[in-house]
Amino acid sequence: MRRDRLLLAASLIVIFSADIYFILLPKLRSTGEGSGRSCSCQPSNFSQLSDWTLTPLQDITLSQPDNGGSKLDRLFAHPLYNTQTPVLGPEESLLHLEQLMDYYRKKVSRWERHMKLYNEAAAASNITVMEHEVAFDPDANWVKFHLGISRNALYSRQDPAITQLLWDMRDMTVVNADYTQDGKSLKGACDCSQVVKPSGHHLKLALKMQNFAKAMFKPMRQQREDETPEDVFYFVDVQRHNAEIAAFHLDRILDFRRVPPVAGRWLNLTGEVLQVTRNDELRAVFFTSPANNTCFFAKCLYMCKTEYAVCGTPDLLEGSLSAYLPGLSIAPRISIPNPWIRSYSFTRQEEWEVNPLYCDTIKQLYPYNSGNRLLNIIDMSIFDFLMGNMDRHHYEVFTKFGDEGFLLHLDNARGFGKHSQDEMSILAPLSQCCMIKRSTLLRLQLLAQAHFRLSDVMRESLQKDPLQPILTEAHLSALDRRLHKLLRVVQRCVRRLGKDQVITNDFKPRAEALSKKSK
Amino acid sequence: MRRDRLLLAASLIVIFSADIYFILLPKLRSTGEGSGRSCSCQPSNFSQLSDWTLTPLQDITLSQPDNGGSKLDRLFAHPLYNTQTPVLGPEESLLHLEQLMDYYRKKVSRWERHMKLYNEAAAASNITVMEHEVAFDPDANWVKFHLGISRNALYSRQDPAITQLLWDMRDMTVVNADYTQDGKSLKGACDCSQVVKPSGHHLKLALKMQNFAKAMFKPMRQQREDETPEDVFYFVDVQRHNAEIAAFHLDRILDFRRVPPVAGRWLNLTGEVLQVTRNDELRAVFFTSPANNTCFFAKCLYMCKTEYAVCGTPDLLEGSLSAYLPGLSIAPRISIPNPWIRSYSFTRQEEWEVNPLYCDTIKQLYPYNSGNRLLNIIDMSIFDFLMGNMDRHHYEVFTKFGDEGFLLHLDNARGFGKHSQDEMSILAPLSQCCMIKRSTLLRLQLLAQAHFRLSDVMRESLQKDPLQPILTEAHLSALDRRLHKLLRVVQRCVRRLGKDQVITNDFKPRAEALSKKSK
Repeated sequence: MRRDRLLLAASLIVIFSADIYFILLPKLRSTGEGSGRSCSCQPSNFSQLSDWTLTPLQDITLSQPDNGGSKLDRLFAHPLYNTQTPVLGPEESLLHLEQLMDYYRKKVSRWERHMKLYNEAAAASNITVMEHEVAFDPDANWVKFHLGISRNALYSRQDPAITQLLWDMRDMTVVNADYTQDGKSLKGACDCSQVVKPSGHHLKLALKMQNFAKAMFKPMRQQREDETPEDVFYFVDVQRHNAEIAAFHLDRILDFRRVPPVAGRWLNLTGEVLQVTRNDELRAVFFTSPANNTCFFAKCLYMCKTEYAVCGTPDLLEGSLSAYLPGLSIAPRISIPNPWIRSYSFTRQEEWEVNPLYCDTIKQLYPYNSGNRLLNIIDMSIFDFLMGNMDRHHYEVFTKFGDEGFLLHLDNARGFGKHSQDEMSILAPLSQCCMIKRSTLLRLQLLAQAHFRLSDVMRESLQKDPLQPILTEAHLSALDRRLHKLLRVVQRCVRRLGKDQVITNDFKPRAEALSKKSK
Repeated sequence: MRRDRLLLAASLIVIFSADIYFILLPKLRSTGEGSGRSCSCQPSNFSQLSDWTLTPLQDITLSQPDNGGSKLDRLFAHPLYNTQTPVLGPEESLLHLEQLMDYYRKKVSRWERHMKLYNEAAAASNITVMEHEVAFDPDANWVKFHLGISRNALYSRQDPAITQLLWDMRDMTVVNADYTQDGKSLKGACDCSQVVKPSGHHLKLALKMQNFAKAMFKPMRQQREDETPEDVFYFVDVQRHNAEIAAFHLDRILDFRRVPPVAGRWLNLTGEVLQVTRNDELRAVFFTSPANNTCFFAKCLYMCKTEYAVCGTPDLLEGSLSAYLPGLSIAPRISIPNPWIRSYSFTRQEEWEVNPLYCDTIKQLYPYNSGNRLLNIIDMSIFDFLMGNMDRHHYEVFTKFGDEGFLLHLDNARGFGKHSQDEMSILAPLSQCCMIKRSTLLRLQLLAQAHFRLSDVMRESLQKDPLQPILTEAHLSALDRRLHKLLRVVQRCVRRLGKDQVITNDFKPRAEALSKKSK
């Protein structure tokens, strides 16, 4: 019951801060800023938007002149990004410190045992593997990231470990490279009838670092300025390393914090993969290209499909490095089909594509009939719509947090494929259910303002990545255009159903759920 | 013996005509033309070339002003392209008229029988196939093409049926579409370990026309201005329809006439493939793309590899149409591994790549130890070098003409991949054997002149194709650059071995062979 009060207080603080921010400053500014700057998202429309949403957002443009400082800093300093979150109880952290240390110490000694055995065998068969000492550091930033995962998000807003971890990933020493678990589960068999996501899929690598961190590497497959051809189905599109990076930044800017940290990285395919891997199959897919570059190709597509190879120049290859989540044995997750899943076939249509009342059915079904799950799905669809990601067939949640857990936004590499197309069907959960979290809407409205413009804060955020520029200007301005379209969808819902029906206080359901739990 | 004399007379006429052409006109012109035009192949070098080749070619530039007329007409009017060929004896034609008519009449009636049965079965299973009447016309241009194939070439220089056939191919009505025989021989199985040429390979289609002509369609897979990435091995490069078209024109300009007629064609994938095919498997690989275009993909790569699909807009797809040779049952051919075959692996090297004396070995081996075969291989390497085709693993000859038959230059779709690279290893037969037919060299020298410049005559020739432009300017000027490099290779050989050793009268060996035969 005490927690309920805290949550309610937190909600009130959010609304209050927003009130002060948007009511005290408003009428002073009106056209001052809008005239001189080109805004692809037509700010004039946003002042109309305010009619049907919250009073505090009645006036959208800010009177302060754009002093040229960091828009991103300004965004993160905004009250909406500084709401007090309740102090976490012990059950609201994903992991316990002692348990985690114990788990990793066991993993380290198992790893050392395995490596000793492998190295003996390798020496006997004349295979040279570069050996690195592994040193598990309980104070490493990746450990802090794991310890910081809570029922609210993957990391807290001001957690310095995240920024540090992004920095670490640039040059962490790689001590082992292997296929990822899902790559391995294919066991080299090419069961094409089962594979929904072919090609790029099997080129990702699991890297182990000297400090025992693990990260997934997705190599560059496509130039920044290439657009996915219009005839390509979403489920055969290549995976884009820059989309993986941009998705992390977008998710953080939307304040979801449901994407594990991702940073760009230059990888030396010879020194950091070929010479450190203990997997003979992985070693076997390496070759030297006609241009004398080091390349490797997908295991499953061996012989037939060397067009799918990726190559370094001559050894260096850029890619995305995503921090691994804690292992499934210590932090189990479940994968749940997205209710708005696509058909992954040439012709079949799913029910949601033909039934405009589909959401009414979903609303009746567990776990969408209570709590935040449906609102979380709508958040996810907003995230996916902004980046044009149609490949969200499943979502994952930590089992520990049960039905109230947040949805992990993993595997975003099929976003940012076409800047010139806005795939409205991705927004089906929002447009069919006509519901949105008040907190999400407030942030979206903020990002639609020139003062915090989404494309500007994204550009600034992405500039910190070593592989910058991550997104072309065309993709950045698509974000603004899509944000505008998204707010129009909410506007139409409010016109139809009224704001009380559409704009939902997302703290309440969780409080209810908790009170139910405590009964 | 009479034929020998004829052949010798013909040789003398060639040399005589060249003499008149190049000695009567020469000294009058020297720099007049060269100054005003940019020539990527440095004509000044070509005058040096003449030192070591034939006296008639001593002076290369022509005194006549470039009157702006057709360079291609001028080329084909040149004495080198108007040498008298001996009248063909009955055994020097590939086919006999009666035999061919009999063969096709049988084929037509078998076809009609099959179609009747198929259509009954199709009606029973509710499959609608568009039916066209087939009318075999013994006077059709494709029949004339078949009848014109001789021991000298696939067609004679002035054969109007070839120009007519190219014209016919633009709009011949397609009455049936199917996989090609080599596509079918895979039987849908994807034996990757066997497949040297994946991807594009299985997207080609065998089309039957209303007048019973057959042609192979290769769809467009690549934009004209795209270059093959430097890391792609030649054996996984896509097949280019425009290379197939350009190769026919290049082969004709080189006066080889060993490529069957190829023309560009817009094909309606729905009306001319999907609705006329009787192959259920082919019908099954058709789908509609997200952009609502009609597409189809390679049978062997089904499910996994829809990225390999080709799509019309919405139904129209451009491609190359190559006239079929007479069926193997009436005109058998054998396929022989190219002695300069590449390894088709990532690492293995073939003997010719490491042994500079490889040609000495080959010269000892049947059938390269007598006759024209080795000179024909060198012709082929010249043809392949000019277009940058590294994919000549086998060559074919008509069995009827035995070891003295010309080599068919089939399957040229992997040419014209990189305009910026000149792959000198393709010339290995020439550079290692240091032999070239006098007739080939004379024509190459002619095409190196500004007055007949290879790129100009190619551009002009390709302009007649309905899909023009077929080659980008970068590819056209690469032809001139490569021709220059090729002549330098001959120059070096002559310097080393003397012209008598290098420049070979190709008529003699055949005459010898014939006289041997008649003994």
